[in-house]
Amino acid sequence: MAKYVFGVDVGGTTVKIGLLDETGKLLEKWEIKTRTENNGENILPDVAASLNAKLQEKKIDKSDVIGVGVGVPGPVDSEGTVHKAVNLNWGEFSVSDTLSKLTGLKATAGNDANVAALGEMWQGGGKGIKNQVMVTLGTGVGGGIIVDGKILAGFSGAGGEIGHMHVEDNEEKACGCGNHGCFEQYTSATGITRMAERHFAAWNKETVLKQGNINAKTVFDGYKEGDALCKEIVAEFGEYFGKGLATIASVLNPEAFVIGGGVSKAGQCVIDAAVPSFEKYAFPGAVKNCKMLLATLGNDAGMYGAAKLVIG
Amino acid sequence: MAKYVFGVDVGGTTVKIGLLDETGKLLEKWEIKTRTENNGENILPDVAASLNAKLQEKKIDKSDVIGVGVGVPGPVDSEGTVHKAVNLNWGEFSVSDTLSKLTGLKATAGNDANVAALGEMWQGGGKGIKNQVMVTLGTGVGGGIIVDGKILAGFSGAGGEIGHMHVEDNEEKACGCGNHGCFEQYTSATGITRMAERHFAAWNKETVLKQGNINAKTVFDGYKEGDALCKEIVAEFGEYFGKGLATIASVLNPEAFVIGGGVSKAGQCVIDAAVPSFEKYAFPGAVKNCKMLLATLGNDAGMYGAAKLVIG
Repeated sequence: MAKYVFGVDVGGTTVKIGLLDETGKLLEKWEIKTRTENNGENILPDVAASLNAKLQEKKIDKSDVIGVGVGVPGPVDSEGTVHKAVNLNWGEFSVSDTLSKLTGLKATAGNDANVAALGEMWQGGGKGIKNQVMVTLGTGVGGGIIVDGKILAGFSGAGGEIGHMHVEDNEEKACGCGNHGCFEQYTSATGITRMAERHFAAWNKETVLKQGNINAKTVFDGYKEGDALCKEIVAEFGEYFGKGLATIASVLNPEAFVIGGGVSKAGQCVIDAAVPSFEKYAFPGAVKNCKMLLATLGNDAGMYGAAKLVIG
Repeated sequence: MAKYVFGVDVGGTTVKIGLLDETGKLLEKWEIKTRTENNGENILPDVAASLNAKLQEKKIDKSDVIGVGVGVPGPVDSEGTVHKAVNLNWGEFSVSDTLSKLTGLKATAGNDANVAALGEMWQGGGKGIKNQVMVTLGTGVGGGIIVDGKILAGFSGAGGEIGHMHVEDNEEKACGCGNHGCFEQYTSATGITRMAERHFAAWNKETVLKQGNINAKTVFDGYKEGDALCKEIVAEFGEYFGKGLATIASVLNPEAFVIGGGVSKAGQCVIDAAVPSFEKYAFPGAVKNCKMLLATLGNDAGMYGAAKLVIG
């Protein structure tokens, strides 16, 4: 019989927990509240209690459990130490050690975006591709780099923080990080909205966009209906998106990019928008055969990836 | 007694060969000619003959040799297959397998820039630093990414080909790769010369630079003497160099950069020139504690790294 494994994805509001078997089949999933008060001291004990209750309920012996993997919204190094997770009010400590002591199970921890990338490699859009980069286009832009099937965590856990790559010299507005011209200023949902509002203000022809209803979803919806303004905005998005992917490809030479996050729900047109710019900027040698794929696991990617992290 | 290992660095003109012990001590080094005629079919047999002769001369038994590592000027994937090496007239074949058959030794192959990076990590400027990026500022710009002590080869062997990262939108001159605005157009010896000639043409004050004697060395020499034009050129170099390093840091979050190649012979001022721009463009989180170091092994880095590659 296949062994069990837990995949835990800790978010700022809820913790998603999955019980999987070692082949990657999700047997059950549920959520608990993330209690961030008192420096988030209850979060891991709450997780441990929930796992133990599940084992009791399902009459699973701990010896049949490979372990528990956990994704955390903050930089986590390859040893499983988090270096501050602001949304959880966490400082620096070993998540792996703490969770292992609390559960009596082998525990490993990783950054949530990196863990999601591992999930997509294992059971999602990039299934079986050992060298890939996941790009998550959400409120911000996150990334996860998979090299030879493993997460590239970086020295201080900030590997794959591609949202803050510099892609534009002439940006006057500061990014949340304090720099100017970061990748996520043009490719996140927030960035697309900002660009769309600028284009909208300068537009005097018909458009489906309306004041007060301008966001990444309405822009891509309008694009699909052939709206001229939305086409202009998506082209600008694609120019930056392709340029950033090209830079990453020139550094890492991945086999594939896997595109996820809320913006990617618009589908293939998100990838198609990037292609001309990608081909313009990427090193001809490294581009060869680089695939661009959509993520398929949605919000479950973190659970899958966390489970895979502890399986190894 | 420590075991022996061979490190081989195949260049377009000569092959550098080193006999080392497994602790990284270079016992002997020599060179043979690179015979590139007939699709370079003699290169590996020549290497094998040279290794065998050395073993005979030193009365070393093959059972005391860990193996032979080899660096190749072209993309080499993690399996040791080269995907075309134009300077050697090589197409695609397994360098590891071929050299192993020819020598009866375990053989592994890597790209020369990647292997040099491994050498600097093992015995050079980045000694003991497991997550580092070597940047080689030579005629072009090469790079080698070391993650957890191993080379990041990339899907088709082009991992770390950072010379072709896009860093400038307003470049009219094409790079050798066909793109415009590549990192090496501003930071290679060739790129610095090109920038210097442009600055020189527009300069009407005193300078140590002279028509017909403008290159990376004279620019950095003049910079050290306080020449105003050279300072201007080095500042422009530094702007691009720091920007490129910042981009790489935002993707990989390395502990250190190790700077090598002919341009780096100018010393610490090459690094100092990059710092303001690096701090301006790099993601604040990932920058933290990122060291910038000079390479120390010079042309021997490839031999050391090749030896380390086969030791593992």
